[in-house]
Amino acid sequence: MTNEELLSNAALKSWNQVLGRFDKDLTALTDEQLQKRVAPGKNRLFYLYGHLTAVHDRLLPMLGIGERLHPELDEAFITNPDGVLTDSVSTADLRRAWSEINAQLTAAFERFTPQDWLRKHSAVSDQDFAADPTRNRLAVVLSRTNHLSFHTGQIVLAK
Amino acid sequence: MTNEELLSNAALKSWNQVLGRFDKDLTALTDEQLQKRVAPGKNRLFYLYGHLTAVHDRLLPMLGIGERLHPELDEAFITNPDGVLTDSVSTADLRRAWSEINAQLTAAFERFTPQDWLRKHSAVSDQDFAADPTRNRLAVVLSRTNHLSFHTGQIVLAK
Repeated sequence: MTNEELLSNAALKSWNQVLGRFDKDLTALTDEQLQKRVAPGKNRLFYLYGHLTAVHDRLLPMLGIGERLHPELDEAFITNPDGVLTDSVSTADLRRAWSEINAQLTAAFERFTPQDWLRKHSAVSDQDFAADPTRNRLAVVLSRTNHLSFHTGQIVLAK
Repeated sequence: MTNEELLSNAALKSWNQVLGRFDKDLTALTDEQLQKRVAPGKNRLFYLYGHLTAVHDRLLPMLGIGERLHPELDEAFITNPDGVLTDSVSTADLRRAWSEINAQLTAAFERFTPQDWLRKHSAVSDQDFAADPTRNRLAVVLSRTNHLSFHTGQIVLAK
């Protein structure tokens, strides 16, 4: 591997580790456990799971990988906080959407060249990107990996 | 910046973001709040704070930055789980140690060239590193950044 490949490979490895840890924790939780709150008065695990799924689905167009697969999740898991709407998605559907979205993201990240990692994402303008090339796809993926770690830390408390 | 610099800079930016978020959360918590548990029957915030401080202190020799500053923290925050020993460190001492350790780490990361990020760390043997050069310093720092995010997710629940 070239130095550039070694550097970008570290991000992929980090993504895979965090996602693998989360998936292991999620598989160990029953649908009933997912209805528990991470702490008294806080979000249900089910809500956090939906939130992560919607946020990762948004990465598909943001990183130029493809169209969104589940834009219908935004209303329940991004626009509204937990407890406002009646659940319209089953846990089985959520588990399926989560796998599908992350399989597509991971496959794309594995194909990304170092150049691809350094490209602009769709949430930054050409002008802003020209002024600050650190606002690239790699920065977004590291940020989402941290976001997933953050909520994994909460989800494990309910075990 | 060269491509290599842009790639390694993303890791530094991610470290700074997560550390900045954690520091903001910690500053907002009183010493009394740090005695709360993140969830019933789980670790106290104080313990997690000590744990993170000891883990980051270990990065100094591991990444070839310098000697450990606070090896005395291991006994209370790594070797033993929460609640086994009587607290021997004050919260003020912990806050001071945390700042000191992370200032030293961040200063070193800012000086690291892309080559430095790809160097071996001290927890991997020459032979293992030759066989797998992805076991480099960058991988360790991304892993510790995720670890910090993981516990930040827990600490904010006690607010």
